Amino acid sequence: MSDLATLEFANGAFYEAFAAADLAQMTELWAASGPVFCCHPGWQPIQGRAAVLRSWAELFANSGPMPITHHLLARDTIGEMGVVCCLESVSGHGFIATNLFVRDGKLWRLVHHHAGPFAGKLPVIGGTARPPAN
Amino acid sequence: MSDLATLEFANGAFYEAFAAADLAQMTELWAASGPVFCCHPGWQPIQGRAAVLRSWAELFANSGPMPITHHLLARDTIGEMGVVCCLESVSGHGFIATNLFVRDGKLWRLVHHHAGPFAGKLPVIGGTARPPAN
Repeated sequence: MSDLATLEFANGAFYEAFAAADLAQMTELWAASGPVFCCHPGWQPIQGRAAVLRSWAELFANSGPMPITHHLLARDTIGEMGVVCCLESVSGHGFIATNLFVRDGKLWRLVHHHAGPFAGKLPVIGGTARPPAN
Repeated sequence: MSDLATLEFANGAFYEAFAAADLAQMTELWAASGPVFCCHPGWQPIQGRAAVLRSWAELFANSGPMPITHHLLARDTIGEMGVVCCLESVSGHGFIATNLFVRDGKLWRLVHHHAGPFAGKLPVIGGTARPPAN
């Protein structure tokens, strides 16, 4: 698999864990060393692996599994880092997300997730969230 | 200067250009090659250098110079990439931003700016936007 393919795979695994409220998979996905950062919409920014994972545990405990789809806007690898920008549809609400990954052998681990409200309507068609036509 | 110092310098130059509505400086700051991405709050996501610079031209034409302060939440360099997370206060409105830079010799160039609404009050104290105490 190419770098971009493995990056998309890691990003997909993140949304699978998110949708399934699977804390074990989410824990696997975040980098085990180095600084990490997470900004959920409507939350204070969160830094550090332990605090970030607590936030996912809290979110999953409150919401359980959720219908989530994502639509890739852009993805790129720059050296050891992978950058993904997505539109997200989470329980019918639209968000835009920046997800950053660092290389870990053949895998990619999350170091940064920043999701915020998306301006515009985010229709969900055939299970894939699509950006509105301009 | 250390990597982190030059990264902070580049991030500061971005907010100076933003506050001054200085399109020439903003143009200098964005990477001249490779994919770039920009998401202004309330706008559709924008890809590609020409479209991103047009968005800044439009924003500056509409707003002119604006009172902007920023507060660093996190910054890190990973190989060729620099990651900065900030709280922004723009004309008194609070945002959270992810800014990504790539190394260009001794400088850093922007490849990604994603700003979205910040949950919470963002007081401006002594010219520096500070996050509220938890």
